[in-house]
Amino acid sequence: MNIYETMAPTDLRKLISSGQISGPTAGMAKGYTQANLAILKREYAFDFLLFCQRNPKSCPLVDVSEVGSYIPTTIAKDADIRTDIPKYRIYRDGVFTEEVTDITEYWEEDMVAFLIGCSFTFETPLLEAGIPIRHIEENCNVPMYKTNIPCVKAGVFEGPTVVSMRPMSSKDAIRATQITSRFPGVHGAPIHFGDPSLIGIQDIAKPDFGDAVTIKEGEIPVFWACGVTPQAVAMQSKPSIMITHAPGCMFISDLKDEKLSVL
Amino acid sequence: MNIYETMAPTDLRKLISSGQISGPTAGMAKGYTQANLAILKREYAFDFLLFCQRNPKSCPLVDVSEVGSYIPTTIAKDADIRTDIPKYRIYRDGVFTEEVTDITEYWEEDMVAFLIGCSFTFETPLLEAGIPIRHIEENCNVPMYKTNIPCVKAGVFEGPTVVSMRPMSSKDAIRATQITSRFPGVHGAPIHFGDPSLIGIQDIAKPDFGDAVTIKEGEIPVFWACGVTPQAVAMQSKPSIMITHAPGCMFISDLKDEKLSVL
Repeated sequence: MNIYETMAPTDLRKLISSGQISGPTAGMAKGYTQANLAILKREYAFDFLLFCQRNPKSCPLVDVSEVGSYIPTTIAKDADIRTDIPKYRIYRDGVFTEEVTDITEYWEEDMVAFLIGCSFTFETPLLEAGIPIRHIEENCNVPMYKTNIPCVKAGVFEGPTVVSMRPMSSKDAIRATQITSRFPGVHGAPIHFGDPSLIGIQDIAKPDFGDAVTIKEGEIPVFWACGVTPQAVAMQSKPSIMITHAPGCMFISDLKDEKLSVL
Repeated sequence: MNIYETMAPTDLRKLISSGQISGPTAGMAKGYTQANLAILKREYAFDFLLFCQRNPKSCPLVDVSEVGSYIPTTIAKDADIRTDIPKYRIYRDGVFTEEVTDITEYWEEDMVAFLIGCSFTFETPLLEAGIPIRHIEENCNVPMYKTNIPCVKAGVFEGPTVVSMRPMSSKDAIRATQITSRFPGVHGAPIHFGDPSLIGIQDIAKPDFGDAVTIKEGEIPVFWACGVTPQAVAMQSKPSIMITHAPGCMFISDLKDEKLSVL
């Protein structure tokens, strides 16, 4: 994955749209914001935008397209959201039906694309502070879990908060809380650490999305609200069609992570 | 105004809805978030929500009602947005037509209420840091100006950024930048200080909204994005009807200011 770390977002998007990259994007284009995707038809767009507004820790918006536009103009003027993500998931009436690498043939004229900030953004400053990121060390996808923390409902949209988990020492957890607090636009501070059962996670070794990672002796799991939350919400709220990125396979934008830092 | 400083938001809202308070709310219910209001019909709601999402410094949303609901459930469950603000302004096709103290008879079933964070929230911590707030000292409304900084367009909504201004020493401006950076949910850090002409303000003694305040020798004007921006936008974008608060006459919520601080 190292060769992609210093590559420009626009070049990576070309490799992705041409099918040369089709897997997780963690660690790519270091310093640039990656985003989760949710595409909905216009009839659901206000409710979903309201859902994001009411659940900013899970759904921090970094861009929303105009109705019918597949170009995320604010964060990547030359991108095409239908081709520039390695893998997409199609949900029909809340049921995951297929995984594809291109959604051009699925696009409809009244669709709206929501780009949602991703915890990858704060991983760079965590690494720079000397805090190890296990799923990067183990070269796999970050583990994600459905919790028993309900999102605030908006119109037809409701469902549980999904969290991403990074194991670390207590000392690192304190520093990580400070660092991620600087990024309220990409999930912000953790929402929980320690006992997973307190937020409804029964088995930490079995994530609902992504891959399990090693939790070493003396480490605690630290949980951040995760942009996969809209996928869990889609399953429960059953819009006729919803398109998302596949877990870990994000949109790589031209936005610098530092732009999302408040301090 | 002092007697209102320690009064609970719910009691103040009662005084307001019964007509016993009909002026600016600065300094009332210290420590509780006050909000700007913009009410639109459903047909404009997605575009306006998108406008707020794209212009978070001017339009930081603290609550949005469901379509048809006049209760801002997230920030004041027992409130009625039609009666609980001292003064409202009605705009028809972008033209300010009347100022009223109750909008019950104007409410329509497909209206959506947007509550937008207000700079009053960060005035408490500024005061606590020993930074004088001139318009509170002079017992008037904060001065607000239209600038030449365009908002990011969303659908039919476009227009200039409106700013609020507080004069202070350079030393205090530095500290004020630190303090307000902790509140990205209510305008955050200043967007300008010093020469007003650089952001298109021709005469600092003639604010477009609110009242002029004294700028003392050695002080510089410091400018924050202001929640009155949607009013300027309404004028330029001409929705058939839009209802806002009157400048300085805000909605007093049950939300504690500290909830909006990221650090």
